[in-house]
Amino acid sequence: MDSWTRKGKFSLTALTLQIVFILLFAIFADYDYGADAKHDFDLDSDSHRDAFMADHPDVQRLDANFMAMFQDVHVMIFVGFGFLMVFLKRYGYSSVGFNMLTAAFAIQWAILMGGFLHLHDGKIMLSISTLFTADFAAAAVLISFGAVLGRLSPLQMLMMAMLEITIFQVNEWMGLSIFKAVDVGGSMFVHVFGAYFGIGMSMMLAHNAEIEQGQISRKNEASYYSDLFAMIGTIFLWIFWPSFNSALAVGNAQQRAVINSYVALASCCVVAFAVSTLVHPKDKLEMAHIQNATLAGGVAIGTSADMMIHPFGSMIVGSIAGLVSVLGYQFLTPFLGDRLKIKDTCGVNNLHGMPGIIAGVVGVIMVSMASEEEYGSSLYKIFPAMAPNNGTLLADLQGKFSDSIQAGDGRTASQQAVWQLVALAVSLAMGIFGGMFTGLVLRTPIWNRPHGGDIYEDDPWWHVEEGQPELAPEGGEEMAYEAPPAPMKKHISHMHSLVQ
Amino acid sequence: MDSWTRKGKFSLTALTLQIVFILLFAIFADYDYGADAKHDFDLDSDSHRDAFMADHPDVQRLDANFMAMFQDVHVMIFVGFGFLMVFLKRYGYSSVGFNMLTAAFAIQWAILMGGFLHLHDGKIMLSISTLFTADFAAAAVLISFGAVLGRLSPLQMLMMAMLEITIFQVNEWMGLSIFKAVDVGGSMFVHVFGAYFGIGMSMMLAHNAEIEQGQISRKNEASYYSDLFAMIGTIFLWIFWPSFNSALAVGNAQQRAVINSYVALASCCVVAFAVSTLVHPKDKLEMAHIQNATLAGGVAIGTSADMMIHPFGSMIVGSIAGLVSVLGYQFLTPFLGDRLKIKDTCGVNNLHGMPGIIAGVVGVIMVSMASEEEYGSSLYKIFPAMAPNNGTLLADLQGKFSDSIQAGDGRTASQQAVWQLVALAVSLAMGIFGGMFTGLVLRTPIWNRPHGGDIYEDDPWWHVEEGQPELAPEGGEEMAYEAPPAPMKKHISHMHSLVQ
Amino acid sequence: MDSWTRKGKFSLTALTLQIVFILLFAIFADYDYGADAKHDFDLDSDSHRDAFMADHPDVQRLDANFMAMFQDVHVMIFVGFGFLMVFLKRYGYSSVGFNMLTAAFAIQWAILMGGFLHLHDGKIMLSISTLFTADFAAAAVLISFGAVLGRLSPLQMLMMAMLEITIFQVNEWMGLSIFKAVDVGGSMFVHVFGAYFGIGMSMMLAHNAEIEQGQISRKNEASYYSDLFAMIGTIFLWIFWPSFNSALAVGNAQQRAVINSYVALASCCVVAFAVSTLVHPKDKLEMAHIQNATLAGGVAIGTSADMMIHPFGSMIVGSIAGLVSVLGYQFLTPFLGDRLKIKDTCGVNNLHGMPGIIAGVVGVIMVSMASEEEYGSSLYKIFPAMAPNNGTLLADLQGKFSDSIQAGDGRTASQQAVWQLVALAVSLAMGIFGGMFTGLVLRTPIWNRPHGGDIYEDDPWWHVEEGQPELAPEGGEEMAYEAPPAPMKKHISHMHSLVQ
Repeated sequence: MDSWTRKGKFSLTALTLQIVFILLFAIFADYDYGADAKHDFDLDSDSHRDAFMADHPDVQRLDANFMAMFQDVHVMIFVGFGFLMVFLKRYGYSSVGFNMLTAAFAIQWAILMGGFLHLHDGKIMLSISTLFTADFAAAAVLISFGAVLGRLSPLQMLMMAMLEITIFQVNEWMGLSIFKAVDVGGSMFVHVFGAYFGIGMSMMLAHNAEIEQGQISRKNEASYYSDLFAMIGTIFLWIFWPSFNSALAVGNAQQRAVINSYVALASCCVVAFAVSTLVHPKDKLEMAHIQNATLAGGVAIGTSADMMIHPFGSMIVGSIAGLVSVLGYQFLTPFLGDRLKIKDTCGVNNLHGMPGIIAGVVGVIMVSMASEEEYGSSLYKIFPAMAPNNGTLLADLQGKFSDSIQAGDGRTASQQAVWQLVALAVSLAMGIFGGMFTGLVLRTPIWNRPHGGDIYEDDPWWHVEEGQPELAPEGGEEMAYEAPPAPMKKHISHMHSLVQ
Repeated sequence: MDSWTRKGKFSLTALTLQIVFILLFAIFADYDYGADAKHDFDLDSDSHRDAFMADHPDVQRLDANFMAMFQDVHVMIFVGFGFLMVFLKRYGYSSVGFNMLTAAFAIQWAILMGGFLHLHDGKIMLSISTLFTADFAAAAVLISFGAVLGRLSPLQMLMMAMLEITIFQVNEWMGLSIFKAVDVGGSMFVHVFGAYFGIGMSMMLAHNAEIEQGQISRKNEASYYSDLFAMIGTIFLWIFWPSFNSALAVGNAQQRAVINSYVALASCCVVAFAVSTLVHPKDKLEMAHIQNATLAGGVAIGTSADMMIHPFGSMIVGSIAGLVSVLGYQFLTPFLGDRLKIKDTCGVNNLHGMPGIIAGVVGVIMVSMASEEEYGSSLYKIFPAMAPNNGTLLADLQGKFSDSIQAGDGRTASQQAVWQLVALAVSLAMGIFGGMFTGLVLRTPIWNRPHGGDIYEDDPWWHVEEGQPELAPEGGEEMAYEAPPAPMKKHISHMHSLVQ
Repeated sequence: MDSWTRKGKFSLTALTLQIVFILLFAIFADYDYGADAKHDFDLDSDSHRDAFMADHPDVQRLDANFMAMFQDVHVMIFVGFGFLMVFLKRYGYSSVGFNMLTAAFAIQWAILMGGFLHLHDGKIMLSISTLFTADFAAAAVLISFGAVLGRLSPLQMLMMAMLEITIFQVNEWMGLSIFKAVDVGGSMFVHVFGAYFGIGMSMMLAHNAEIEQGQISRKNEASYYSDLFAMIGTIFLWIFWPSFNSALAVGNAQQRAVINSYVALASCCVVAFAVSTLVHPKDKLEMAHIQNATLAGGVAIGTSADMMIHPFGSMIVGSIAGLVSVLGYQFLTPFLGDRLKIKDTCGVNNLHGMPGIIAGVVGVIMVSMASEEEYGSSLYKIFPAMAPNNGTLLADLQGKFSDSIQAGDGRTASQQAVWQLVALAVSLAMGIFGGMFTGLVLRTPIWNRPHGGDIYEDDPWWHVEEGQPELAPEGGEEMAYEAPPAPMKKHISHMHSLVQ
């Protein structure tokens, strides 16, 4: 390909879209109440503020811990996802660098697309809460990115982000506003959607046969240090997952979500180690399992993290997720890849896909058992659609608890559970079909798609410094970077015997 | 050893214990007041809450900064300790991976064991505060882990965690509830206990002669990159130590604990650099000193971090700790290792042991000087046992300050100082003897203990990817690591053609 | 140089200065109101506290999020700056280690020097806020450190920190207290000052011709893994920059500063990737651009982060900074280095210098447009000098808004804008001339200055473990990266002689 054409494409597209973003922000976006200098917290009376909040019910108050939780999630998006994907031995610059590019691009578009679906008087009002939900949306894109890691050009990544964020926001809006499903940790809207979007893309990219070829498949491997870098990502994700699952919870559900996530992750981690050893023929641990399956418990508890699942319930969910995830890496990914030619570089189906479905199903079960007896007034805050829509019933409830309970749809627990199932199924479908559509778009030859040796390789995109791990020799022709290959050893000892 | 037997042992033990944990959580554990949906903060009157708190004095209120501090400490446990130990060149997967496994396992058992000692109506009530103290307990296990790093099988690690957490919780309970000692940063209960527990174990493991052998001792070394990875651990520990030392402080002691820790760490760091250069024959810095001794100030200020030690006092303590720690690494660890055959892989005696003893002694001194004149009403909150047990005196004090002061034991400062010393001595003794007992248990041949070349080596436990640093050649038989240089290649092919 | 003399110099200087610091802390420093045990928050009436605060207006109240933001900034100083500079392939130990040493040293001196300029009854009163501003001051030193990275001895670094912190505190004090300029993110006082201080030093160090020599300049390069380590620094800086820019903001300006920084960084990142590709002859990304220029948006929005620049304004500023920064790395740094012999190892002119000037200019523009119409009562809190100094006008304003508005200097927006420009110009001048003076001091031969092969090299200062990347061969004479093991070398030369 002509270098100038190619260069022009990525750079000019990125610059153009960035200018479009700025224009759209100029027209539509401004500070939310709590970030606008006109509203001076120290001076405004509470009544002034309460009146404003009553007029703008979507504007969220910031919790004292929210800034810290936002920063925790920010670490997950940029350090966590970024380094988790550095495991590919010759794709480290790209994994962490393009993760940053894609996320920085996606969060801007996510603010716009999310804002268009929740306009206030024609404006998108920005608060830290907006930034937080933009990070959430970016997470879906980065999960999908994992499924096709090493196989897209930067230009394709931007296109992917544009399309995926759009579909993501529509799916989440349907789930929350139409189906009125709840999903505090985003397991359905972020993880299931993102994972199957990535797999859908991968199915359509039509290079899945090509990448089985020896030379390329040997680039789809880790090295000792790339695995250690990846553990930076794993551990920061593991540590901050409780913040991810709890930041959007209301009232004291926030602390509950932290506890549930913490014990789910701990038990998932133990089970992942145990099962990884168990399934290995020489009873060894696989780094890929440890890097990923230890996190599956955070995904699987996501939907029900703020519910009364009790600590032991969270631990059961976490344990099952750890088990399923390791088995997925060990048996399902190779099966899908070799038999069905569905490649999934990072195994997002095992870390985000199946655990996300578990999360959705656990959510359905927990919701179907939810009662005022167990939740008290919190029931109508965690599941707002279960509050009465009937004025008399609402007044009774407000009398019993507080005026702060708002009218809902009067759903029973079973009805809410059905809607949870609908949201899960729709997220799955929107993910797969959205991803397949996006894959079809991306396979057109105009997007600088990498081929052959450019796959799983930094060199086409980066000026690569010395010390990039080289490939192990295929036959014996190539010289390798590591220990002299076996044939050379033979020559040397042969010569050694000769010269003595 | 038969592979199946070995595999079965670790995996089935881990899975069995995880199931036991889940059962115990199901029977005993539930959400604390502040995380139970029935209690709706927004609706409950303060009086409702205050009444509950009065009935359950052990249930802690959460400070607004507590979630952030908990996450800081979580980073220390999993990133800090995990990467700090990656310095061993061929044990990187294991250091960060088994740190994660051991910690995830230990925190669950710590919640149970700690809970059994503080049951509320037969229940263990979980809050973020519980998770925080579980992380604290895990820290003790990870410190001990450092003393025997590279010399245990994963199965031994789980056994170690089971035994150590049990003894830890009993020791801490005695220290806090019987001796009524104070130790806000856990220097006695976590660092002294953990360090000498590890050394006690190491003494009993009976492989200390074996590991002096050339091949093994050369695995007990760092490489350039493993040292850089270890610095990730060091720096995250250094940064977040103020949160570790202050999170459990009450009232405005929290801010004081942050300040004391910050200046102690800063001066310790400068002294560690200066002394490391000074003791080196070629005036060079040792990475092992910088990775570890820079942190000793955080340990040494731990017990008195919330006391009125004043910033300069903290700096003196930090400086002494930095000095002692470097001297320990340079002179004491080799002496103990070579002469007494007490091996301490990470030198935990220098980072946690001696600085922890310094912390305890500084605590004794500070407590002996504590007066109402200097502390005001805080005296009876920081040292609750110094509040009067005599009704009249208590009433006087409540009149002078506030009704919130609760009856204590009427100790004088000197009496409290003696109890501090008792707690220090008991922690030391419980550590050493607990560790020796655990070491005896672990040396029985049923726990897959590594031998010979399996020591300090990832390969027995992990599928290791290419690029693991190889050992420098001993005699000349072994081939060394890294590609033959280009000119050499030429010679070889030249010779190749010649000799054929 | 005689090794003992050299050793003595660094170690004894560091120890002596540490002792001096402790003495000065003993004489001058103590806990602030909010960290002194005598003041018991739970007992003190609000009126007691308010009376104290009225007497000590400089004593800041702590925001609930402040501790978390302080820790974020602490991560930036030690992990962010530390790892960002690890990119040099043979200077990794030094980059992260000396960053830690220099920062730990600088923060102590910064507390003292800053405190001397703001004494309360002859005392320096420490709060978390003091620690935060000490970290800020250290940032300036670390920025300067980047300009001369690899070319100073540790002893020179301590001297640099002593001199730079002194000049920094004077400059900041003039800027804030005399010129009454505002600079919430420290772009003028930290970034412009620090960058040009470093460049001023570099100009005077008089080894800039020497380091162009082949062998040395080849050490001024990255390796594959050193680049990945550097990305750890980049990403933690990028993530936590919103905390850096917002922690010192008042009232609801804090949330606004987070939002402005977040969108500025996101757009800067996209532009940096686009322009980096565009300027490369083979349309490849340069790691140096991505590691640094992606952060320029955080610098460029710093001065106006708490102003009503609106999200799109922040994005324009961020985009321009990304563009300027990449162009600087690509064209200006080589020009300055080769033509003018002004070396700037990390390119701090591009990351901190020019973006800091942009920040100052944007601040001037924003201030010149500030009005009560847009800011409400916040105008007089964000720009205190714009509050009336006339009693009648002040009373009117207090009547309109609140008694909490304090008397200022009655400046108009234009007058405030002029003072902003003065503060920018003075910071630039103090930086350059302060740096040149410091460089003159440091070039005297008593400070163990490294020469020749000791430049950009860990070996003179550290016991370096195996695996440090070797230099690429210059002609073909030199052996390439990693030496063949000794025994093999022997065989080869033996064979070599045989076959000739």
